[in-house]
Amino acid sequence: MKAYKNMSKDELLALKEELTKAFEDAKGKGLKLDMSRGKPTPKQLDLSMEMLDILPSDCDYKTEAGTDTRNYGVLDGIPEAKSLMGEIMGIPADNVIVCGNASLPIMYDCVSRSMVFGVCGKTPFMKQEKLKFLCPAPGYDRHFRITETFGFEMITIPMVEGGPDMDMVEEYVNNDPTVKGIWCVPKYSNPLGTTYSDETVRRFAALNPAADDFRIYWDNAYAVHHLYEEKDKQDQLLNLYEELKKNGKEDLLLEFASTSKVTFAGAGIGAVGASDANIAWIKKTMTVQTIGYDKMNMLRHVRYLKNLAGVEKHMMRHAELMRPKFEAVLDVFDRELSGLEIGTYTRPRGGYFISFDTLPGCAKAVVEKCKEAGVTLTGAGATFPYGKDPKDTNIRIAPSFPTPEEMAAAADLFVLCVKLVTVEKLLAE
Amino acid sequence: MKAYKNMSKDELLALKEELTKAFEDAKGKGLKLDMSRGKPTPKQLDLSMEMLDILPSDCDYKTEAGTDTRNYGVLDGIPEAKSLMGEIMGIPADNVIVCGNASLPIMYDCVSRSMVFGVCGKTPFMKQEKLKFLCPAPGYDRHFRITETFGFEMITIPMVEGGPDMDMVEEYVNNDPTVKGIWCVPKYSNPLGTTYSDETVRRFAALNPAADDFRIYWDNAYAVHHLYEEKDKQDQLLNLYEELKKNGKEDLLLEFASTSKVTFAGAGIGAVGASDANIAWIKKTMTVQTIGYDKMNMLRHVRYLKNLAGVEKHMMRHAELMRPKFEAVLDVFDRELSGLEIGTYTRPRGGYFISFDTLPGCAKAVVEKCKEAGVTLTGAGATFPYGKDPKDTNIRIAPSFPTPEEMAAAADLFVLCVKLVTVEKLLAE
Repeated sequence: MKAYKNMSKDELLALKEELTKAFEDAKGKGLKLDMSRGKPTPKQLDLSMEMLDILPSDCDYKTEAGTDTRNYGVLDGIPEAKSLMGEIMGIPADNVIVCGNASLPIMYDCVSRSMVFGVCGKTPFMKQEKLKFLCPAPGYDRHFRITETFGFEMITIPMVEGGPDMDMVEEYVNNDPTVKGIWCVPKYSNPLGTTYSDETVRRFAALNPAADDFRIYWDNAYAVHHLYEEKDKQDQLLNLYEELKKNGKEDLLLEFASTSKVTFAGAGIGAVGASDANIAWIKKTMTVQTIGYDKMNMLRHVRYLKNLAGVEKHMMRHAELMRPKFEAVLDVFDRELSGLEIGTYTRPRGGYFISFDTLPGCAKAVVEKCKEAGVTLTGAGATFPYGKDPKDTNIRIAPSFPTPEEMAAAADLFVLCVKLVTVEKLLAE
Repeated sequence: MKAYKNMSKDELLALKEELTKAFEDAKGKGLKLDMSRGKPTPKQLDLSMEMLDILPSDCDYKTEAGTDTRNYGVLDGIPEAKSLMGEIMGIPADNVIVCGNASLPIMYDCVSRSMVFGVCGKTPFMKQEKLKFLCPAPGYDRHFRITETFGFEMITIPMVEGGPDMDMVEEYVNNDPTVKGIWCVPKYSNPLGTTYSDETVRRFAALNPAADDFRIYWDNAYAVHHLYEEKDKQDQLLNLYEELKKNGKEDLLLEFASTSKVTFAGAGIGAVGASDANIAWIKKTMTVQTIGYDKMNMLRHVRYLKNLAGVEKHMMRHAELMRPKFEAVLDVFDRELSGLEIGTYTRPRGGYFISFDTLPGCAKAVVEKCKEAGVTLTGAGATFPYGKDPKDTNIRIAPSFPTPEEMAAAADLFVLCVKLVTVEKLLAE
């Protein structure tokens, strides 16, 4: 195929006519698909239904230690749930707190706690003059909304090969005491689907923050979310907690995970893992905030998933559902876009997203065109701080919710829109 | 019986000898009872076990509106859960947000949100010079810990006939703009077990706060927690939300409730009810904090309890278990303390506590003596701001956890300790 940029104006005009006709046809098909959020499909939720039989009316509702999960108490979660979530995060059970039904509120709470009470006894953020937070982008919009809401100046860190641009991260973190944290989705990252390299993790572990209240927000949301069973087709993330420990810097880390995309997106369990000092800090206000989270749901999860091996086995059933959707999209992209030089995309081996980069200035228009023909994508720009993609190139594709067939149809429409918008853009130049 | 204060020194000395001997005997019995927290007994938790069969693996997991409760979404709770919790609180479903497994974190969040973001767009508390919070006492220690932790100056408001001393409340609220809130447990209050009178509620509804960001924290924790089935033996609380509406002041209210002491103390559902403006304010940051709380547990609750009538019926089964314990304690108190003038106590018709007032300066010593003989009570002073009971008189008794027989034994020990400590006190004067 001929690259669009090498086409003459006449070629582009002819192509535009052809694509416009195809787009009108596509609109007529009445598609109605939502690829906007990383939302499990009902079939994935069906995979965990047996967990609901774990605690019936005649169940043993006690933990291994004999605690009645129905009653008050146990601030940091039942020990077996701490073990399970610790295994997933690669952090010892003693350094884990299991909370409510998701990890987002735990992250929010950590930031909120830092605002009011300060990090580990340091000056509360709200009593400090200036606050900055590093935001590797494209990244997770809900992360950025937290720091935006709390009034941080958000610094965009470009995502490059192997993770965030570590030169820039080091420059900021090691020199600027107003930099208080960085958002990371280190494995099968949202939205790129890529995993931080060992070198990146080691550079995180070697940071010398100018601020003594700087923390790495390590959202390990897709720790076990592989698309392939073969080990050589699975990304491996170096254990940051271990790497930090080697350097005596484990206090820099706040790691998060949940079973939202393992069991039920609305009724999972979430956890935070951190150093002794950080756990003590979290517990200090947590004990004022709550008597304890839902231990019955923790017990349900532990009895059902058992351990990391059980989780991994369970995740392969998710992979069977997810893989064809990713492949359907990538097949269409490969077939339709090869050689055109009108977009690049990631080829994730896990997680929930494929990231697509259009030519500069096209992403918003592509998302709008898709919407016009019935396919809803994440709003263009959402993957950047303040919702503003400076080059207007990035589009997050979430293939989980539709069927593989629907995904193929949606991908067809998507590439059509990319082509059409690009042609229009080139003609307007 | 002769009042202790009318006894001669010789009489007191003889009594002391007798009581000391009895106390030593009691110690020998090796009692081991915990009356420190308002914790349901396992038998109460057993009452709700059938709820665990509501959502088995082959269940219908959808709400009436067709929402898949297993998946993400629905920030403010499923509509049927909003209805249920609204009925319990006496607030329309549209003005209710159903959250996680308890109400304490919702209260904490409301204070925390006010600290950082301000109340409904007003200046954040943390940007204000001075903050005060009114604390009717004796009251709930966990309330006081929240406002202490956030750095409020806590003002003790004496509990009098019909509720908090409203003259003092009005004086503070209507004149002092640094007063930002008041903690209330208006029905079967913690620890008195008494209910605010209609006049008290009406006076709350007529407050003219000097601060435009003042809120009434109305913790209706025991809204349906009667001990008796007969209507004339149940306390009735005037609906503050309705009374405020009559005065166009509904923005003053934040009402809280949960099913912690209806179904499972560790795995219930909690809710907040408030005016349109307050609900919008809460949602504004809540949507940054979470994608939504556990909808499956909400569905479980709604299908099991159905509606307020269902809840009330269910609560009568709790009453059957609780009533004998309260009566066992009160029987011992009536029999053993009548005429001695060494203590007064409340006679609650609901809730979880009996409140006991010793002569000044005796409460701490009584709690210590009880502990010495194997009965753990809530720490003396806990029912006051900063954990300091100025007169050292108040002791909170939580009869729910032990059996009625154990409660009688514990009450026997308790009155023995009250007698002994009082005699020692009188002899020392």
